[in-house]
Amino acid sequence: MIDFNAQARNVNPLYLSVPDAAQLILAKGLKNCIAAIADNLREDFMRWGDFDKSARVANHSRDGVIELMPISDDSLYSFKYVNGHPKNTRLGLSTVMAFGVLSHVDTGTPLLLSELTLTTAIRTAATSVFAARLLARPDSRVMALIGNGAQSEFQALAFQHLMGIEEMRLFDVDPAATAKLADNLQGSGLEVVVCASTAEAVKGSDIVTTVTADKNYATIVTPEMVEPGMHINAVGGDCPGKTELHADILNQASVFVEFAPQSRIEGEIQQMPADFAVTELWEVLQGHQTGRRDAQEVTVFDSVGFALEDYSALRFMYQSALELGLGERIALIPELADPKNLFGVLR
Amino acid sequence: MIDFNAQARNVNPLYLSVPDAAQLILAKGLKNCIAAIADNLREDFMRWGDFDKSARVANHSRDGVIELMPISDDSLYSFKYVNGHPKNTRLGLSTVMAFGVLSHVDTGTPLLLSELTLTTAIRTAATSVFAARLLARPDSRVMALIGNGAQSEFQALAFQHLMGIEEMRLFDVDPAATAKLADNLQGSGLEVVVCASTAEAVKGSDIVTTVTADKNYATIVTPEMVEPGMHINAVGGDCPGKTELHADILNQASVFVEFAPQSRIEGEIQQMPADFAVTELWEVLQGHQTGRRDAQEVTVFDSVGFALEDYSALRFMYQSALELGLGERIALIPELADPKNLFGVLR
Repeated sequence: MIDFNAQARNVNPLYLSVPDAAQLILAKGLKNCIAAIADNLREDFMRWGDFDKSARVANHSRDGVIELMPISDDSLYSFKYVNGHPKNTRLGLSTVMAFGVLSHVDTGTPLLLSELTLTTAIRTAATSVFAARLLARPDSRVMALIGNGAQSEFQALAFQHLMGIEEMRLFDVDPAATAKLADNLQGSGLEVVVCASTAEAVKGSDIVTTVTADKNYATIVTPEMVEPGMHINAVGGDCPGKTELHADILNQASVFVEFAPQSRIEGEIQQMPADFAVTELWEVLQGHQTGRRDAQEVTVFDSVGFALEDYSALRFMYQSALELGLGERIALIPELADPKNLFGVLR
Repeated sequence: MIDFNAQARNVNPLYLSVPDAAQLILAKGLKNCIAAIADNLREDFMRWGDFDKSARVANHSRDGVIELMPISDDSLYSFKYVNGHPKNTRLGLSTVMAFGVLSHVDTGTPLLLSELTLTTAIRTAATSVFAARLLARPDSRVMALIGNGAQSEFQALAFQHLMGIEEMRLFDVDPAATAKLADNLQGSGLEVVVCASTAEAVKGSDIVTTVTADKNYATIVTPEMVEPGMHINAVGGDCPGKTELHADILNQASVFVEFAPQSRIEGEIQQMPADFAVTELWEVLQGHQTGRRDAQEVTVFDSVGFALEDYSALRFMYQSALELGLGERIALIPELADPKNLFGVLR
């Protein structure tokens, strides 16, 4: 256990750069990291009521969005900065870039400043698996992976190792992205099938994961593709005007979300009336609501990404960094002999 | 002029630590920094309509609050992280600790990560003077400074150099804080008068600045202390449950705020009905509303601190850091040869 009160006396937060985070993940092993974050998610969603939650704050512009995602309980506070700019790849930049902070609630002292681009990909995959364990058929072995960009490897490996997926059916409108994913999955033990269309990838799959990036009302998956018993893990529709599923799929399925007030703004369900019935994941986890009812039901996890998931991930990164001695302390906050003498810093 | 598009191609933001910021401020000179930020404030408040504005997001806990303050126009985005924990000084920690980020709106790339504890003290003083120039009597020469903590020197010097204040009357419930302030003001050219009470400090003053930290409904200034023609610069009441002025002062004065939707939650006017009349500073600046009507009127700037002020300050810090070659680039965001191959970072 970390003594956060002792940590808070050091005003210099630990800084975890991208190379530090990569070293941490390689030292622990990627699948162990996904599993550990999935465990943290389970722990944190079990105490859903302890958190001060709000929908993230989004500043929208023509080509994208920049968001802040804060959350706290009575011990820790975290926030993530994350952008979403689908056209960035044309400039050689990532669609999603992120970093975040973990702080001590009693004093406001920042404990950790960490890269979160890599970590977001891992926590999103961990969240997808966490939800699928509650909602997909336990005998799921085949997954369609639509959208083969920056997040796709993490989704593939998470579902292989934590959900028992054996066959991964890939499709992307950009064949180079699919080739990259197939290449990265070589040696993983997954049976990889490159498909010529979404319909071909989805056909016969137990789980359908969509992680596309276009900022449009898209209908990546249409009703005629959906088969009884499927679980749809819809990850890519995550801001106003950006959806992936045809509305009729939502009408005919049971829909699960992270935090309804945010999902109604950002998720697939932005297409639906304000009173469209959804179930929050924590309600299923805590046994207040049923997840999947039977092997024929179609379930949809309308995932947009919620601040609690970053809290769970930052908690893991902080603990692991301290344990492995990674990162460095940075002088982001003044260290003052007399806290009322800030002016003294200039002397 | 900075070419922000060119800057955005470098995903490694410039990091400005506390020592870097202190070096920048010393190199430029503190009063020049306050003046330059006041100029930026004027420029940015003149184009108030260009900004995507929202009340800050606050996570409250027993002993304090942690807030995120985002804002953007069609070119730049900024946010500040700031806490407010009045009891922190007992632990040897600052009441207010802050840092912030300036980003490129078109791509979401963070350009600057900067300390903002020191910078917040400067921008708050710059904002106070910016407002006083619109609201106080131009012949103001005497200021009462109630609350002699971390922000007080910056307020004193800002009002001396940019408003022509010659006599500073100090009071704090903690005499050690007053002694520290008086000591730091030696050689400034200000006539410093240490007072035994708020009433003594306020008596005969043209401007009354309150920068106290207690998280309580306090009545630091009461109606019988207020004299005709005074301008009250109320800086310390800045979150729900934290006020400094007696409600009757507000009833008898003209009250000016930064951004009314936020001030009604956090400012002195949280004590007043939701339709209590206030004027936003930009309306006075742009000539839509009158500031001070005559030499007898009592004016109140109910300052809580608004995101635009940090935007103005970050803009100054970024430009100055580039100009002086201060700060260092940090690997907060992955640099990817293929932006769709985030997984490659782990290879």
